[in-house]
Amino acid sequence: MLAETTFFTENDGEPVAIENARGRGDVLLVCEHASRRLPKRYGTLGLSEDALVSHIAWDPGALAVARLMSKQLDATLIYQRFSRLVYDCNRPPESPAAIRDVSEVFRIPGNENLSEAEKSLRTTSLYLPFQGAIRDEIAARRARGLQTVLVTVHSFTRVYFGQERAVEIGILHDTDSRLADRMLQATGGTSPYRLERNEPYGPADGVTHTLELHALPAGLLNVMIEVRNDLIADEAGQGAAADFLSKLLRESIGTLTKNNKNGG
Amino acid sequence: MLAETTFFTENDGEPVAIENARGRGDVLLVCEHASRRLPKRYGTLGLSEDALVSHIAWDPGALAVARLMSKQLDATLIYQRFSRLVYDCNRPPESPAAIRDVSEVFRIPGNENLSEAEKSLRTTSLYLPFQGAIRDEIAARRARGLQTVLVTVHSFTRVYFGQERAVEIGILHDTDSRLADRMLQATGGTSPYRLERNEPYGPADGVTHTLELHALPAGLLNVMIEVRNDLIADEAGQGAAADFLSKLLRESIGTLTKNNKNGG
Repeated sequence: MLAETTFFTENDGEPVAIENARGRGDVLLVCEHASRRLPKRYGTLGLSEDALVSHIAWDPGALAVARLMSKQLDATLIYQRFSRLVYDCNRPPESPAAIRDVSEVFRIPGNENLSEAEKSLRTTSLYLPFQGAIRDEIAARRARGLQTVLVTVHSFTRVYFGQERAVEIGILHDTDSRLADRMLQATGGTSPYRLERNEPYGPADGVTHTLELHALPAGLLNVMIEVRNDLIADEAGQGAAADFLSKLLRESIGTLTKNNKNGG
Repeated sequence: MLAETTFFTENDGEPVAIENARGRGDVLLVCEHASRRLPKRYGTLGLSEDALVSHIAWDPGALAVARLMSKQLDATLIYQRFSRLVYDCNRPPESPAAIRDVSEVFRIPGNENLSEAEKSLRTTSLYLPFQGAIRDEIAARRARGLQTVLVTVHSFTRVYFGQERAVEIGILHDTDSRLADRMLQATGGTSPYRLERNEPYGPADGVTHTLELHALPAGLLNVMIEVRNDLIADEAGQGAAADFLSKLLRESIGTLTKNNKNGG
């Protein structure tokens, strides 16, 4: 029989990481773009070192912030251990953005003219186990009597296609804006960050896929958080952002929960 | 907090069934359309009893044949426990054929004008765990030192849109025809069944999705088998078809394996 192709080699490890699996908090944190690591078989995808460490490969700082939030909220955290350059787990398999051959100003040679088989390999190796793990985790929490608030944590680059972005933290939502509304109200005029609704991206850009898959159908409270990555480039910045976001989430979820209990 | 929606109720059970999980044979059997059972939440989908027991709901006889083959080949068998009327697990989420509002001559009222959230719910509840289980099983077999020959087992209706079909067993393949070629050659003129290549469907109809996802990328030998369902409507027919197919698979895989060993 012909030798089988294997996607991951021994040093690659698994695609999905779960931290604080026994967390008792309401929040389930998800980081689709946590890592810039490439499976060994892809080498550099033909990219320069600049590109390989840039925001096209991952969301710098997002995992560090999510880990701090995981501690503060006693929240389970699920993240993808490989770069979105190979497969962007926040996009469905049919989306051209799942595997890009151009991202911002970078051409990605290793993603050009891929066969259907190669796309399937990436889908089954990276996307299916990742979104499957989120599904399983939500089901397991339900079985343990825990409700779930789904919170995805991202970062964005300050300068995109040469344009500077003023927004510092984006609070993103799809058709269910309950939690996002509350978070935007709760900060009032007092936020140390410049917050915006559905900036620098919104649902029309296809960025709410994970929320759409798991939160909207089940009626779970949900939000996607985007932090400008220059603000979380070091530990002090990561700590400040995590403190702010954990407090904001805790208060916003608290009032939503309380209102519902009063109401019914 | 709002009550969560759950897809499966207690009596529904799990979407994926795995039988003979410790099977030592080369073959991994998959049955996407094994069952006509609907999750309780969907009632009848607005369909008549005739439609609910017809081939639009499942592949009658396919699971029974696959179970016999599982014994004969000591093969692990993975099947979907719910009807393709809710989600056809042999189709990717973007395909209009994944959730049909019309199938052959039947309108499916419960599938009309679905929201994106409802489609996502079916995708995460039925498709992700099913294709994820196949992925996991192939990986686990590899870890145990077992290669995998992926064989999907289906049945088709004798009369479709009023037309009678002469083919009795279809041997279907996508771009990798190694095993299908060998099976079609092996029978020569002596088959008790009328066999055809890529009939009554073929890859252009999108029916090779499971093979495309798992077998083609990894270079696994693979084939999709379609048996006309009037031939496997009772135990005698199921036994005869399983005997024939198990022998044909065993011989065909044997020669392919042997040739490769000689060659390399």
